[in-house]
Parts: sequence; C-alpha cells; structure tokens
Amino acid sequence: MKLNNNDVPLNVIRRLPRYYRYLGRFAQEGVLRISSEEFAERMRTSASQIRQDLNCFGGFGRQGYGYNVRDLREEIARIIGIDETNTVIIIGAGNIGRALADNISFEKRGCTITGIFDRKTDLWGTVIAGHKVRSDVELPQFCEAQCPKIAALCIPEESARSVCETLIALGVTNFWNFSHFDINVHFDNVNVENVHLGDSLLTLVYKVNRPQE
Amino acid sequence: MKLNNNDVPLNVIRRLPRYYRYLGRFAQEGVLRISSEEFAERMRTSASQIRQDLNCFGGFGRQGYGYNVRDLREEIARIIGIDETNTVIIIGAGNIGRALADNISFEKRGCTITGIFDRKTDLWGTVIAGHKVRSDVELPQFCEAQCPKIAALCIPEESARSVCETLIALGVTNFWNFSHFDINVHFDNVNVENVHLGDSLLTLVYKVNRPQE
Repeated sequence: MKLNNNDVPLNVIRRLPRYYRYLGRFAQEGVLRISSEEFAERMRTSASQIRQDLNCFGGFGRQGYGYNVRDLREEIARIIGIDETNTVIIIGAGNIGRALADNISFEKRGCTITGIFDRKTDLWGTVIAGHKVRSDVELPQFCEAQCPKIAALCIPEESARSVCETLIALGVTNFWNFSHFDINVHFDNVNVENVHLGDSLLTLVYKVNRPQE
Repeated sequence: MKLNNNDVPLNVIRRLPRYYRYLGRFAQEGVLRISSEEFAERMRTSASQIRQDLNCFGGFGRQGYGYNVRDLREEIARIIGIDETNTVIIIGAGNIGRALADNISFEKRGCTITGIFDRKTDLWGTVIAGHKVRSDVELPQFCEAQCPKIAALCIPEESARSVCETLIALGVTNFWNFSHFDINVHFDNVNVENVHLGDSLLTLVYKVNRPQE
C-alpha cells in the first residue's frame, strides 16, 4: 500500500466510505469474497471504477478470486484512518450539533466526542449524548488541556470566523463545517470537510427541474 | 442558454450553489460587476474553472467587462430552478428533520415545507417550524391531495426502504436523503441528493490522517 496518498483524487476518497459501508453489509450477510463485478452490481456502479479506485491504494484484488471481504474492509478502514482515535469537539449545541451528537456513531468512525460548547448561557450544563454543554469561554483552557483534533462547527456563518480564529490559534485545524463560512478561503493549512446543507438542497432542486435521462 | 442541461457534469452543478452564494454577497457589498479573476480570488478557485463552468450554460461574461453580478445571480437562480416552487415534505421529526425545518431557509431556495411526518405517536401534533407533525399513516391521503415534489428522508436506514416504496407509488420521486439507504440502488427513475453525514465524517478522518500538502 502506498502510504503517501496525497495524489489520490478527492472523488476517489469520497467513495471509500461507501465501499466500506457495503463491505460491512457483505460481511454481515456472510459473504467471504466478492468479484468486482458483483461488488459493482450491488452498488450500481461499474467494476472498472471500483478496480481503478482501489488501485490508487495498491489494488487488493486477485485475478480470478476477487476481493476478500474482511481483508478489504480492514484495509479501507486503515486507509481512511478509522483504526486511529480522533477526538472531536462540537461547537454549537443547537439542532444540528445535537443531531450530530445524538445520531452519528462517532466511535464506529474512529472518533470520540470529548466536548460540546455553546455560547448560550441557558444551554450550559444541559446534557447532550452524555456530554454536559460547556461555555465557549472554556474553549482555550479545554483545548490546551485536551488537544482535540477535530471541531464540528454547528454555528451560524456570522460567528464562524472568530471561532475558527480562536480554534486555529489553539491548534485545532481540522473542521467538519456545517456553517456557510468558507474556512479554507480565509485560513491556510486547515483540513475542512464542508456539509453545506443549503447547497445540497439547491443541487436537488436543479435535478428536480431538469431530471436526468 | 441551453435548456437541456443533461450533459452538464454533476461536479459543475454542485458548484453552482456556491457561485450563487458568493454573487449574493457581492450584491450585498454593492459590487455591480466582477471579473472572473476577482471572482476566483474571492472563492479561492481558478478563473478558468469559473469560466468553464458557466460556459456549460452559455457563458454570461463579456470580454473586458466581466460578469454583471445581479444578472449572473439571476441566471444561476433560473438554471438551478430557485424561481420555481418546490413543495417539500419532511419524513422523520427527530433531530435531523427538526434541524432541517428550523435551520434551512427553504423559501430562499425555491422550496416550501408543506408537511412533516413521523411514525412516533408522541410526536404527533407537536409543532416544528410552524408545522404540526402528522402521522405517517396520513401520507397517502396527503400526497394524493397535495402532490409534494420532494421528500426529505430523515429516518433510519431500516425504515427507509418501505417509506420510499410508499412515496414512489404516490408519485414522490425526488429525495433529499439523510438515511444510509441507497435509494437509487433500489429504485429507478428517482432524483436523489444524498447527505451521508457518516461518510462525510470519514472523508474528514482521512484528511486528518493524511493532510494535503
């Protein structure tokens, strides 16, 4: 396996989690090995895309055998980094922050929530997914002590910039960004995964009005 | 403008909402026209990408002038279909359904929520974003009367399949899918925009463990 994956296109990376999910299903169904053709049929994609994508990391399939489901799943977990532990803080305990904390299996994805923060005094001390919501004033002290790796930004665009400044100064440079603030337009050397729900809705609106053939 | 946009790559479509957001900002700032170079600098993308993307729909820029901010914004709104009205029902009044109803400006995106449904009896009648949560048993009658265009699926994977079957039979074929159920693997002739939050987190985990140069 190539360890330097900087040259792997982002589109390929984005497909890895889906391969991982499907391999988990195959494993649950008791499937031990699978050809790229069967794999592709289950996912409604093409066998050549699966082969090409996995070849970015060294292949893993064997001619005439296909893929070993359990091994390939473990390899993908390792490539993504699910086997490591990434500490996550959630900034903003509103609907979206709460939805993430309550609905996403962070642990299954190599992540652990270590803190939830909000600026609203009436939320302080309330418990979300087992975590007491803390004041954002505690952020510096918390980050210095705990060095969280990832911040999930669940706050409005207006407050996102100053929160990012604070967090980056504290060494938090990985962002799961639910705000409309474009972090990587304003800051360098950050890793950002944007979830722009509004943009996603607009993409659907486009598809609705111009259905694919 | 080409009216048949079926040949426009999905990656281009996905960038349109961001152009639209930025043009809204430029307009707010009082910018009347902008060159593709300035546009690109503000978005940290390349001028040639902006030009190429917009050329898919006919261009809109003028040599030596650049883009008229208001006109281009209106054109993009029309291309996406924001000027039309798409009725949306939300299936699932848990954290995610609630986060969408409360946090997303549907109206600004050419959409109106017309109903929120859940199977949990204790949620029936509670009010979210001005809408009384209805029983999922009402779905057939509601869809026949109101013909909603889009369903936002905010339910677990286990129940997604049967809900999709029901909705598709009722003529609802456009899905904003927050479940892990792959609708377009199982059904034909549907428009699906997936928001796989778990996959998005995994993509970030990958980036964290293998930072880009």
